[in-house]
Amino acid sequence: MSLEFKNLDKTTSYTSLKNKSSKLSLKEVLTADRVKSKHITVGGGLEYNYAAKCVNDDILSDLQALADEQQLIPKYKELLNGAVINTGEKRMVLHQLTRAQLGKDVLFEGKNQRDFYTSQLNRIRKFVSQVHSGIIKGSTGKAFDTVVQIGIGGSDLGPRALYISLENICNPAMKAHFISNVDPDDANAVLSGLNLETSLFILVSKSGTTQETLANRNFVIEKTKQAGIKGFNPSAHFIAVTSETSPLAGSSDVLDSFYMDDFIGGRYSVTSAVGAAVLSLAFGYEVFEKLLAGAAEADKLALETDLKKNPSLMDAMLGVYERNILGYPSTAVLPYSQALSRFPAHLQQMDMESNGKSVNRDGEALHYATGPVIFGEPGTNGQHSFFQLLHQGTDIVPLQFIGFRKSQIDSDPDYEGSTSQQKLKANLVAQIVAFAKGKNDSNPNKNFAGERPSSLISGEQLTAEALGALLAHFENKVMFQGFVWNLNSFDQEGVQLGKVLAGKVLAGDDDMDPVLRAYSELLAI
Amino acid sequence: MSLEFKNLDKTTSYTSLKNKSSKLSLKEVLTADRVKSKHITVGGGLEYNYAAKCVNDDILSDLQALADEQQLIPKYKELLNGAVINTGEKRMVLHQLTRAQLGKDVLFEGKNQRDFYTSQLNRIRKFVSQVHSGIIKGSTGKAFDTVVQIGIGGSDLGPRALYISLENICNPAMKAHFISNVDPDDANAVLSGLNLETSLFILVSKSGTTQETLANRNFVIEKTKQAGIKGFNPSAHFIAVTSETSPLAGSSDVLDSFYMDDFIGGRYSVTSAVGAAVLSLAFGYEVFEKLLAGAAEADKLALETDLKKNPSLMDAMLGVYERNILGYPSTAVLPYSQALSRFPAHLQQMDMESNGKSVNRDGEALHYATGPVIFGEPGTNGQHSFFQLLHQGTDIVPLQFIGFRKSQIDSDPDYEGSTSQQKLKANLVAQIVAFAKGKNDSNPNKNFAGERPSSLISGEQLTAEALGALLAHFENKVMFQGFVWNLNSFDQEGVQLGKVLAGKVLAGDDDMDPVLRAYSELLAI
Repeated sequence: MSLEFKNLDKTTSYTSLKNKSSKLSLKEVLTADRVKSKHITVGGGLEYNYAAKCVNDDILSDLQALADEQQLIPKYKELLNGAVINTGEKRMVLHQLTRAQLGKDVLFEGKNQRDFYTSQLNRIRKFVSQVHSGIIKGSTGKAFDTVVQIGIGGSDLGPRALYISLENICNPAMKAHFISNVDPDDANAVLSGLNLETSLFILVSKSGTTQETLANRNFVIEKTKQAGIKGFNPSAHFIAVTSETSPLAGSSDVLDSFYMDDFIGGRYSVTSAVGAAVLSLAFGYEVFEKLLAGAAEADKLALETDLKKNPSLMDAMLGVYERNILGYPSTAVLPYSQALSRFPAHLQQMDMESNGKSVNRDGEALHYATGPVIFGEPGTNGQHSFFQLLHQGTDIVPLQFIGFRKSQIDSDPDYEGSTSQQKLKANLVAQIVAFAKGKNDSNPNKNFAGERPSSLISGEQLTAEALGALLAHFENKVMFQGFVWNLNSFDQEGVQLGKVLAGKVLAGDDDMDPVLRAYSELLAI
Repeated sequence: MSLEFKNLDKTTSYTSLKNKSSKLSLKEVLTADRVKSKHITVGGGLEYNYAAKCVNDDILSDLQALADEQQLIPKYKELLNGAVINTGEKRMVLHQLTRAQLGKDVLFEGKNQRDFYTSQLNRIRKFVSQVHSGIIKGSTGKAFDTVVQIGIGGSDLGPRALYISLENICNPAMKAHFISNVDPDDANAVLSGLNLETSLFILVSKSGTTQETLANRNFVIEKTKQAGIKGFNPSAHFIAVTSETSPLAGSSDVLDSFYMDDFIGGRYSVTSAVGAAVLSLAFGYEVFEKLLAGAAEADKLALETDLKKNPSLMDAMLGVYERNILGYPSTAVLPYSQALSRFPAHLQQMDMESNGKSVNRDGEALHYATGPVIFGEPGTNGQHSFFQLLHQGTDIVPLQFIGFRKSQIDSDPDYEGSTSQQKLKANLVAQIVAFAKGKNDSNPNKNFAGERPSSLISGEQLTAEALGALLAHFENKVMFQGFVWNLNSFDQEGVQLGKVLAGKVLAGDDDMDPVLRAYSELLAI
């Protein structure tokens, strides 16, 4: 099948959708039967339920037509086969390949890419086993009991969110910490609580030149010098996760290097060596393998053409409908699981950095809305916070709920006739219904208009497999939306200008923009 | 002066603003002189700089007219004097009174409210001093070294954000933890790292009936029973912060109770006993006093009628201009300080719960946009994440930067010619300029349109005084915006429906809505 790349507003199915008459009433649409029938298997034991989305079969069939017209599944297949989908940087996009071989063999300069990724994971598996068994020790002869990831953006948010998600359930072999911000207060605060002799640091930077990460490496090394520990050798406490061509690769300053490449963007790198090293050191490689298995399952389900059987495709198309037809500018992610407390921050990066674009894949200006603002906090916390605006504010914000039948830790006393987990779940389902159906009250201040759509991803328990599927579900959703909008979800040119200007400030450039100089003086740089 | 309450769309100054011709160019507006001149003292050593906001003197004078027409300062003064500004719940609004007496004496049932708040703070001061000196000990005779706040929403977000903000600089006397979510994994994770014998728990609930907080209290008590510590008496390890009429007040299950009242909403309660107990136990009461002093300074500056001299008024009016004239639906809060990592979550609650309303103060429907979505993460982290959308997305998101000349911890080695703090600041100013002025590039994918407005709150260092002023600045901004929109910023009816429905689920009501039942079955409640 030959692929055709069209802007959304050039498709016939989008025009058809836009010309539909007025919006449906969610209050009328949402029935018990719908709750029982409108769900799709996500992988990892999860289900995607879209009963509380404001669509009927007619709209879904238009969305299917749009998905077909924009060739979402053929494009995904070509991505899996190694097509240059990242048009801006002229690169393949291979994060799914870290999980499984779903397409043809992908070769780059004669090298099989799947073999490359698995070989790196195998090297990590071996390294981790040597650390855990005490074969590899710190420079003063003590076993490592702590791992510190130094990285920023994708090298930080995804691995950190996943570490927090699994910390309660996976019984860490090593405690993990993260240093990301160039703010010296970040590194100082993390380091103040550490035993340097038993700490292993992971430097994560694809280019090996990320300003924040190198500054924080230097920061750590200076701290170890100040500590004056007899016999301490910093290079025996660092490993690198980087590309083979980076200055960090195989450097004598690190104990070992593990490799990623240009075909996996930072925000999609959790299932590569970037997440593998820290998560395997923390939980053991077998936990990381389960994460991969869950993600692979979700990737495979995303190959299905029928959106009623493809959860990430359905999620993507419903999001496009809400963004481009209904005009909603943001989406809230609401996990009813404290373990997912930083998962919204990961999705915020993954989605907003991927699809926050104004040009199409060929660099031409787009004249329709693309990626929305993504934000969120765990429930029930959010209920006592920003949910007020979600219920009664003047804008409608679509909601992505996530919840589990069981808690991670099996210790949950009864209080007033129910456990905490039951209370948590009761609140979750109550919110879905409250948002959708509202409540009429003669006092307008206590009136709930309802009509606020949501979807629910649910499962038995937040395990490594479930987490892997959850991660991949959203990656694939964002990929499909990028295809609908005909943009390149895999570059991030928007982060460059700030770096250049910051460099000018630090260099004290004589020809610095006077405005930039004035701000620099204000902050006494 | 008699007060008049008008909807925004009934004011003549709003009509005048709406009829202005096309939008200004920020690229043209923003000059070095403007950076040097467009700033206002915030209090606590901070400055509010609005050079990079897309307004000229003409628009500012319209905004001043609107502020005058909506009587923002007279309304603030009446609030300070004890007017019933919370019309929905028919209550006074007195959080500023915890900081200073800026208006007339406020009496309630013959009681002077300022005396009431200060008497509670004095009781906390004394209690804290007895804990720190070891006069008050745990039930097994060990000194307390840890404090755990159990609360949700305003009893959690503000105190937690402020604790994190000061942890590095204030040398905690006691380590603080927070349990908020009803998710049992939250309480289990926090408790697993604690020594119960040396832990003091603070139950924070105004009503004394908050479901999550009572469930978590029970959770902690069950854990202490399971621990089977000889001689352990839970009631000697709990204090309460609650209203005088709540079931927790003076209960034999707590060591002591400290009081708040109905005139301080949860999201405005950090400077009341709610924040005082945990922050004073952590850092000493003198640190809390500095926080109050910074907040009081900001409150006083908010009395100024001229918006060019009143930072929270200016911030409020610029926000209204961006929301109602320019139509921007969200605002990002971007502190370049890791210590402020949870401050955006606090502002998210404070702003969205206050002004996420669709009815005016008299309960009549409004026909214009009110409170925006608020989200944010610290820089430079955000630069490697969602900043892509902020720079090149299809929607414009106004930005609130926050930064400091000095870091909190004075240990910052040089790397490649600059310290980490210099790099942090250089990135901050670079971003402001990149967002405002953009960059033309013949490659549209590398083109930055600019025209993305921001403001900057900056100061020497994030101290307790600065933090107090920062807190009050945003509280007052939100209050002024509520007055402009003619809504009640001080109730939260939108959180009620979910509670009612959750109660039905937990009670297993026979007449439960079939949709609610279907969702309940899905999650096996």
